[in-house]
Amino acid sequence: MKFFEDIAVGEKAVFGRHTFAAEEIKAFAAQFDPQPFHLDEAAAARSHFGALCASGWHTVMLWMRLAMLYRRAEDDALRVRGEPVAQLGPSPGFRDLKWHEPVYVGDTITFATEVVETRVSKSRPAWGLVFNVNTGANQDGTLVMSFIGSAFVERRPGG
Amino acid sequence: MKFFEDIAVGEKAVFGRHTFAAEEIKAFAAQFDPQPFHLDEAAAARSHFGALCASGWHTVMLWMRLAMLYRRAEDDALRVRGEPVAQLGPSPGFRDLKWHEPVYVGDTITFATEVVETRVSKSRPAWGLVFNVNTGANQDGTLVMSFIGSAFVERRPGG
Repeated sequence: MKFFEDIAVGEKAVFGRHTFAAEEIKAFAAQFDPQPFHLDEAAAARSHFGALCASGWHTVMLWMRLAMLYRRAEDDALRVRGEPVAQLGPSPGFRDLKWHEPVYVGDTITFATEVVETRVSKSRPAWGLVFNVNTGANQDGTLVMSFIGSAFVERRPGG
Repeated sequence: MKFFEDIAVGEKAVFGRHTFAAEEIKAFAAQFDPQPFHLDEAAAARSHFGALCASGWHTVMLWMRLAMLYRRAEDDALRVRGEPVAQLGPSPGFRDLKWHEPVYVGDTITFATEVVETRVSKSRPAWGLVFNVNTGANQDGTLVMSFIGSAFVERRPGG
């Protein structure tokens, strides 16, 4: 993670892509969102979705996974260059999670982020707060999921 | 699911309880939120959390799992009594997800919900929209997680 001072509004990153297979859609749903249209092709065909589709939470969790792997690779690259690595602190939460369109079997979702606000934390002056618009879009470029995330990011010592 | 017309603001339900074990905290984190303080006791001890704690998303996913199992049991009970079962439709999304306190190994979280708003959908007149405050609280009664959920619920035919 870059230090808070090095993060600017408007910065974008693409974290990665994921293609949703039927088996993982069903496995996730069985564990965390056991609804018929996420578990069974025939039940999904009879539902308002018309075909098996991923739990909306599954889409969010893949965003999270790819975001964390991206950050880890970024930290590794900083260390290779001998640069200091800032801590990514906890997230106080998020707002306005929207599932715009279903994610069907075979859809490839591209997960990305854009910084929309940065400010120094009043309660924890050694940290800044960074707000991002986080998105998933399918192979047609259609937005399927978005939310506004927030996280504490370490400030540069003495910065 | 009860029909939209039978759901009143102020209705509450407790979906269930879950005790978070170290192994499942690590397994979830490895899959969806690979950060050191969710994966490794020693790294967690050095972090701002001070000890291994669950991914905030893990807490939300357990809320979702227990909510869906509760709804399924509710539907089964309606069918046993020969009463019609309303469809629970998709959720347009959520807002104001907050992780108030960490969930540590051994914490038992009680997951609950309260209806805060109901209105007929303008875009889909056969459906109503129900808004809930959804919560998780630990064994000391401390709120650890909350968000405002929404979902489409079928209206009574001819209602």
